Amino acid sequence: MESIKFIGKKLFILDQTLLPNEEKWVEIKNKEQSYNAVKTLMVRGAPAIGIFAGYSMALFSENNNIYELKNYLDSSRPTAVNLSWATDRIVKAFENGKNLIDEAIAIHNEDIEMCRKISEYGLTLLNNGDGILTHCNAGELATSRYGTGLGPLLLGKEKGYEFHVFCDETRPLLQGARLTSYELEKAGIDVTLICDNMAGFVMQKGLIDAILVGCDRIAANGDTANKIGTSSVAVLANYYNIPFYVLGPYSSVDFKCKTGNDIEIEEREGDEIKHMFFEKPTALNKTKCFNPAFDVTDNSLITAIITDKGIAYPPFDNSLKEMLG
Amino acid sequence: MESIKFIGKKLFILDQTLLPNEEKWVEIKNKEQSYNAVKTLMVRGAPAIGIFAGYSMALFSENNNIYELKNYLDSSRPTAVNLSWATDRIVKAFENGKNLIDEAIAIHNEDIEMCRKISEYGLTLLNNGDGILTHCNAGELATSRYGTGLGPLLLGKEKGYEFHVFCDETRPLLQGARLTSYELEKAGIDVTLICDNMAGFVMQKGLIDAILVGCDRIAANGDTANKIGTSSVAVLANYYNIPFYVLGPYSSVDFKCKTGNDIEIEEREGDEIKHMFFEKPTALNKTKCFNPAFDVTDNSLITAIITDKGIAYPPFDNSLKEMLG
Repeated sequence: MESIKFIGKKLFILDQTLLPNEEKWVEIKNKEQSYNAVKTLMVRGAPAIGIFAGYSMALFSENNNIYELKNYLDSSRPTAVNLSWATDRIVKAFENGKNLIDEAIAIHNEDIEMCRKISEYGLTLLNNGDGILTHCNAGELATSRYGTGLGPLLLGKEKGYEFHVFCDETRPLLQGARLTSYELEKAGIDVTLICDNMAGFVMQKGLIDAILVGCDRIAANGDTANKIGTSSVAVLANYYNIPFYVLGPYSSVDFKCKTGNDIEIEEREGDEIKHMFFEKPTALNKTKCFNPAFDVTDNSLITAIITDKGIAYPPFDNSLKEMLG
Repeated sequence: MESIKFIGKKLFILDQTLLPNEEKWVEIKNKEQSYNAVKTLMVRGAPAIGIFAGYSMALFSENNNIYELKNYLDSSRPTAVNLSWATDRIVKAFENGKNLIDEAIAIHNEDIEMCRKISEYGLTLLNNGDGILTHCNAGELATSRYGTGLGPLLLGKEKGYEFHVFCDETRPLLQGARLTSYELEKAGIDVTLICDNMAGFVMQKGLIDAILVGCDRIAANGDTANKIGTSSVAVLANYYNIPFYVLGPYSSVDFKCKTGNDIEIEEREGDEIKHMFFEKPTALNKTKCFNPAFDVTDNSLITAIITDKGIAYPPFDNSLKEMLG
């Protein structure tokens, strides 16, 4: 279920805007197509965007000024830190006279390795037969192989584990329904789709042994920003005494953010709530919507943070720092 | 925003299946139209169905055998207790030689009076300017005037209170978006629509002073069955120290149910989650969905239960019994 393929010096992506109804691989042949693929969310997920930008830089710098190309591609999604990180890295490789294709492949392979480590650490916390709840999408579509939040499930499947996964549909953009349930289904993992407001019910009924979520940013004290609704899942997990695990690359830990209060939350258009995906608007045109895209889960609600450097337990102030060794 | 009108011996309903995009009043002229109106959810909400059935019985028994008519209308929605309760009452009025139209109007007026009492008791718990969170729809569309869960807001508006209401869209059937936000907007109340998974966020941000929800059934110990997601809102309210109020007629208390474990939860079709309202399916055809329609909120999470007989506080075992006097 990887979403980016580089075969015979050709770059292909799985158009994620068409999932789950259509599986269409698209070849990206020039910088304009690359720009549009990111802009229109055909490629999404921070690591996947970085990998894609690396290949795009390596391929299209032959016919373009590499500095102009970098600025052009960076502008396709200005808030994606991984995008400019990857384009920077290809520029540096260029300046050092390295092979750019090799550098792009290195970025890709490093992501696979990072996801594999997260998945292996995460899997040590789970048992065969566990019921698992997930929120949003942090799988292969968003990364390279395995993913972060879903990594232990996909790696576990390879090793013969049988999990029973419930995935929150994750309103308003439905990444849980459109991407996670699709990805797990394709991997042959037992998956059941629920609405976000049913997460408490499946916990109450004893169907959940552990909760796995990805992360967008982790503060120095362990407070974690992730897709809207994550912190509510954590409060419910706490109430029902179910372990709540955050999974992500160690690079997600932002030591400049002391606590979650330092993390700014993106507020998106209300139309995503009442128009997007629906046949007809779900509320009156004049009705206000409030649409925060992320929330911050308090560190006191997190059982452990699993990164490619290991597993951090509370108090996270110490364990996250010590993790680097 | 009432949904049933009886004017000059003619029965009209607001077709709730078309809300919020179209406001269409339909005259109900015969028993077949009455049956279909309930069956297709043009009329919904237990009290509203009872009121509607009362008028239907009174009007259409002139040209029909009243006992056959009762059985026919009862079969339009077999699980709606209020429906057969109302048709029973009209049959008894018939057997006692009473005027059936007067009896139907009495059912309607008693519901208005019941809602007014709930609203008045509920309003004593709120302050002008309060931020309120609601889940699902328990307003005038589902009852007669004021409603139950929304009653204090609508009555308060008449008395000059200004509330700031956040309403959960309430997946999968979107009653919060389609009905509650519409109803409050029409009443001129400040309302903001959010996704269900944002309820914790608005509580965390200090925007909510009280939570108001309706109820489908209340056990003797106060455990309350209501729309799926209600119990999660209650867990969040408990975590954030926000009062959580359940509002409903005293007749919702079912003393035969000792605890919430005695309340059976209806499980509905998974297609409601991945197909209904959407332009395209949100998940693969073969992907399983789990779709419980209700959940049970533990009495320990409920601040007070507000009925037409007064306000009950914990321990509910005693207070609900004593309420009757």
